[in-house]
Amino acid sequence: MALIKKPVTGMKDILPAEMRLRDYCIGIIKKTYAEFGFTSIETPCVESLANLNSKQGGENEKLIFKVMKRGEKLNLETAREENDLTDSGLRYDLTVPLVRFYANHTSELPAPFKALQMGNVWRADRPQKGRYRQFMQCDIDILGEPSNLAEIELILATTTTLGRLGFADFKIRINDRRLLKAMAAYSGFPEEEYDNVFITLDKMDKIGIDGVAEELAKSGFAAESIDKYLDLFRAAEGKSGLDGLKTIADMLGDALEEEVRNNLDEIISSVDSTKTAQFEMVFDPTLVRGMSYYTGTIFEVAMPQYGGSCGGGGRYDKMVGKFLGQDTPACGFSIGFERIIMIMMDEGFKIPDENGRVAFLIEKGIKGERLAEIISESQKERAGGKQVLVVRMNKNKKFQKQQLLEQGYEDFREFYVNPIG
Amino acid sequence: MALIKKPVTGMKDILPAEMRLRDYCIGIIKKTYAEFGFTSIETPCVESLANLNSKQGGENEKLIFKVMKRGEKLNLETAREENDLTDSGLRYDLTVPLVRFYANHTSELPAPFKALQMGNVWRADRPQKGRYRQFMQCDIDILGEPSNLAEIELILATTTTLGRLGFADFKIRINDRRLLKAMAAYSGFPEEEYDNVFITLDKMDKIGIDGVAEELAKSGFAAESIDKYLDLFRAAEGKSGLDGLKTIADMLGDALEEEVRNNLDEIISSVDSTKTAQFEMVFDPTLVRGMSYYTGTIFEVAMPQYGGSCGGGGRYDKMVGKFLGQDTPACGFSIGFERIIMIMMDEGFKIPDENGRVAFLIEKGIKGERLAEIISESQKERAGGKQVLVVRMNKNKKFQKQQLLEQGYEDFREFYVNPIG
Repeated sequence: MALIKKPVTGMKDILPAEMRLRDYCIGIIKKTYAEFGFTSIETPCVESLANLNSKQGGENEKLIFKVMKRGEKLNLETAREENDLTDSGLRYDLTVPLVRFYANHTSELPAPFKALQMGNVWRADRPQKGRYRQFMQCDIDILGEPSNLAEIELILATTTTLGRLGFADFKIRINDRRLLKAMAAYSGFPEEEYDNVFITLDKMDKIGIDGVAEELAKSGFAAESIDKYLDLFRAAEGKSGLDGLKTIADMLGDALEEEVRNNLDEIISSVDSTKTAQFEMVFDPTLVRGMSYYTGTIFEVAMPQYGGSCGGGGRYDKMVGKFLGQDTPACGFSIGFERIIMIMMDEGFKIPDENGRVAFLIEKGIKGERLAEIISESQKERAGGKQVLVVRMNKNKKFQKQQLLEQGYEDFREFYVNPIG
Repeated sequence: MALIKKPVTGMKDILPAEMRLRDYCIGIIKKTYAEFGFTSIETPCVESLANLNSKQGGENEKLIFKVMKRGEKLNLETAREENDLTDSGLRYDLTVPLVRFYANHTSELPAPFKALQMGNVWRADRPQKGRYRQFMQCDIDILGEPSNLAEIELILATTTTLGRLGFADFKIRINDRRLLKAMAAYSGFPEEEYDNVFITLDKMDKIGIDGVAEELAKSGFAAESIDKYLDLFRAAEGKSGLDGLKTIADMLGDALEEEVRNNLDEIISSVDSTKTAQFEMVFDPTLVRGMSYYTGTIFEVAMPQYGGSCGGGGRYDKMVGKFLGQDTPACGFSIGFERIIMIMMDEGFKIPDENGRVAFLIEKGIKGERLAEIISESQKERAGGKQVLVVRMNKNKKFQKQQLLEQGYEDFREFYVNPIG
């Protein structure tokens, strides 16, 4: 029977050139996050459906790949519903598994716990260019740190990493869910409608302030609320650094807790005065971020030159409590690993290669002691740190060398059965 | 709803201490194999059931975790058989995916193609100590190299890696499927019974030569065949290096192709004269290895001090043809990654840590500019290559420091709201 050559729908094979880049980036990411005291952990790719469907995953819960139960032969006669066939699925993110992990191992983990996770996740999205149904996520999280030391360290660690990967002139947009709510409250929107207001606000960068006004009006909100709301954004527009925050906070007055303002102020100032990478901290009152589990600060990496967000995160102080029965402060930052790899591939990023690469081309007839001699020479070069490919000479040697050049071999040595000379 | 804290049955969470060791080993493995010219690739964790069930996977095909079809809502009313519900599953090894990958991308890959794969596989085995349903495999393969240069490079690369991980005094047992067959033919066993003879032979190290004789007799084989067969092993027993091979080959005479003998002879001599790690090449006529797809040389890493095999591989020249429609020589070597990690953990392996680790303990009340100053200092230390954890001082500072010591932080600095001085 002829077998199927293609990967399953929506998933992809990773070829050597991309894989080299991925390994290089993973190395830098792991090294940098370690310098900030993050420790790697790993959870199984398969999780209980009960956890995956616990309403922490938002829309992703509709995209789960379910794994069939094992054990006795599956009985289709008696299976009445899907739950009779499956009770686990492939994880769609690394946050739900992290929180389960933390609940399961709290007593064995340091407090606070600084975790790094790099792993595949699966989502049954409609396949489209650059989006795959299996992809790598790269998350750092700090569990058990209530103060904004968590946010500051997360942002510094992530931006240092991005800097070392060669990114510059990006922005970290920052906002706070509590500020978003205060602005909505101040404007007089009904509390149960906040989420709908934010969904419209989230489109600001696409449809502009007039588009937002129009959409809010269409949704039936009071003109007075809309005006009051948008005046806040108009007042802050174009103001750099902390000025925008000051303007809005002053307008909100008592509607905003002092602590929310000070918190953002401290994070922005501390990061700005200690950062090593080239980027800008930007207070952005239009930043919403989708996940409903965020409870405080939210942030995003903006790389406008590459069409949008390359990562994001925020504080989610209530989620651990759902597993542990006891709230634990939590804050995380996720890099858009696949996006970053795509950008670096598109830009033709050159991996710094410290050690040389040598190809030993050996004639087909060489064997026995002569072969051992040549391999012995290759071993000496390897001991000196070189990468040595020992390979039989093809009939078309010129084409072979050209291929090897493309793979980074710039130095060639040729060996024949009868040494010339 | 309270959520489930445990991982799904038979799978495990990996805690920071083990993860550090795994990352360290992965680093050495990737670096060493790269020096030998192997390039990393990756395939999706999910594969078509048609490929997984193509009889290349032996017993593992019974252990597949199946993934439910997506798309329209699953219709249990009309689903008649399991195939209506599922057409893909989690991979149980990296060999079937490698061969599919190679068939799919032949024209984009160098010839020969030297691949390194490190990735998780899943098997619905009965859970038991040290055996999990998700585990990492680490395979190198050379596709397109017919000569024993493939075997020599695979063995050198793998043993160099094991040596760098701190293993010594192990053995590489080597044999050839064709020699196994020649011995069975010479002894007069019926060809259709070879596999059964090998299943018994495989137990030699457990039940001894008398046990093998007994079991073969019980299976109803002719006493004459059994005697002739076991005389071969008796004659070779205790002979070191190439002597055992010479003895058996001389006894077999024309029953063994000259090429098989020369091939083993060359591999053993070449590896012995060029190896860098401390190990011994051992010709072992009792080595069988289970997978039915092997066609020639087979080998195994024996670490008797750790109870058995820590990896193995061999030549499988017919498998690519099943996907590509055209045979391609292939040879691979797989390290028992989980076994190796378990041994290193049990032995209390200490990871060489070149850079220092410092913990900054900061009093709870510190914030604003003072916080920024401290973080700025931590950034300077990090720029110098140090690993710096910035963490709030707990009430029980002594306990906190003890925990940090266990995590490898040996240097502490304490910061207070009002600097002492």
